[in-house]
Amino acid sequence: MQAIGRTVWAIPEGYIPSKGVSSEHALISHETACLLNTGVKEAKVELTIYFADREPVGPYRITVPPQRTLHLRFNDLSDPAPVPKDTDYASVFVSDEPIVVQHTRLDSRMAEIAIMSTVAYSQG
Amino acid sequence: MQAIGRTVWAIPEGYIPSKGVSSEHALISHETACLLNTGVKEAKVELTIYFADREPVGPYRITVPPQRTLHLRFNDLSDPAPVPKDTDYASVFVSDEPIVVQHTRLDSRMAEIAIMSTVAYSQG
Amino acid sequence: MQAIGRTVWAIPEGYIPSKGVSSEHALISHETACLLNTGVKEAKVELTIYFADREPVGPYRITVPPQRTLHLRFNDLSDPAPVPKDTDYASVFVSDEPIVVQHTRLDSRMAEIAIMSTVAYSQG
Amino acid sequence: MQAIGRTVWAIPEGYIPSKGVSSEHALISHETACLLNTGVKEAKVELTIYFADREPVGPYRITVPPQRTLHLRFNDLSDPAPVPKDTDYASVFVSDEPIVVQHTRLDSRMAEIAIMSTVAYSQG
Repeated sequence: MQAIGRTVWAIPEGYIPSKGVSSEHALISHETACLLNTGVKEAKVELTIYFADREPVGPYRITVPPQRTLHLRFNDLSDPAPVPKDTDYASVFVSDEPIVVQHTRLDSRMAEIAIMSTVAYSQG
Repeated sequence: MQAIGRTVWAIPEGYIPSKGVSSEHALISHETACLLNTGVKEAKVELTIYFADREPVGPYRITVPPQRTLHLRFNDLSDPAPVPKDTDYASVFVSDEPIVVQHTRLDSRMAEIAIMSTVAYSQG
Repeated sequence: MQAIGRTVWAIPEGYIPSKGVSSEHALISHETACLLNTGVKEAKVELTIYFADREPVGPYRITVPPQRTLHLRFNDLSDPAPVPKDTDYASVFVSDEPIVVQHTRLDSRMAEIAIMSTVAYSQG
Repeated sequence: MQAIGRTVWAIPEGYIPSKGVSSEHALISHETACLLNTGVKEAKVELTIYFADREPVGPYRITVPPQRTLHLRFNDLSDPAPVPKDTDYASVFVSDEPIVVQHTRLDSRMAEIAIMSTVAYSQG
């Protein structure tokens, strides 16, 4: 299988609600970037987080092994800094190998969950 | 970082329900265009709103600072005119710099929220 | 403004639940194709509906006036035939002018609504 | 009608919750890939499932008849192996004819359903 995808990906929407009715890990309000590396080489990815009113933070360094998917929760990022809750942000992924990126949010601020997803914007 | 994105973006879906069970700002039914400017220059964006049965309204003038994201609520637009509720509309963004645009709706007409999102259509 | 978009659009997902808890028009389970014509000429669109196990049905003929959006409910189609409920389908739009198409479903089978949306696949 | 689409499609997001409040087939938590073949030839599709921490599984062999849509539930896959529940996965479709692919999840872990959808990433 040829490597599928592109090397630059952007997700303008980002917002992690601090509230949630569930303490179950899978049902806590979260945003995820799903990364897929179909190639035979490890993909080294640099993630930058953009904000409305402050300097970007990053790079966060992520490795996707060959022929693997990595579903990265923005909630779990810590180095160089956690992603603040209840705050508008956006994200850009730059990879040294072609990858594919899809964005999802699970929102459990209310008693019932809501979900959304989109393939991210790509170029490169 | 190179500037990422394109200069023309379209979102055919637009509909802001007037009803909502919550008075909390984050949970009022709303539609958002999330704009990301990764470049080093300010992006000057002109937004036009299209309707089913009347002339387009605009331009709304929006500025996205360099290396910032702007999550624009259609509910908050006022100049040259507010976006009417319970009305089908569509939107087009034309920027002088490359940007990336993602569309979301949070719908709280019922007791529980529902959400949806998609990267907008781009060219240019 | 130049005309934005492309002339061929496809939406593989289609499914209109027959059930719904609401009799309010806006909250009946429905699927919508949102069409945007930013050009100065009327767009004449031919829609074909594809099924899993029978011949395609169409064309449905749709007109989008210049500089207008049309949010077309699949539930409302009748000529040459209504779209059956609880049935997998897909749709293709072919336009004589560039347009942009976005797909949404509002699902009210349960007490609370759920929504989803994506820009359709385009070429041409 | 010309055949519409591309031959390589990727969906980085994959996760089938094992929980669900409904035993009704349409409302069990599931993920679907909606495939559309507008051409006049049968499309032979090979599907590979990628994981976070193990080798990919596949190919699953799928046939989409000419001028038909196939809404494939990942829950229903069995040969060469079922897709595990509560497990991050991703999927790639390679077709010998142009097709269009859209991804959806219906999530019924809670009392009310949530849905999401996106056109998949394509090339080729």
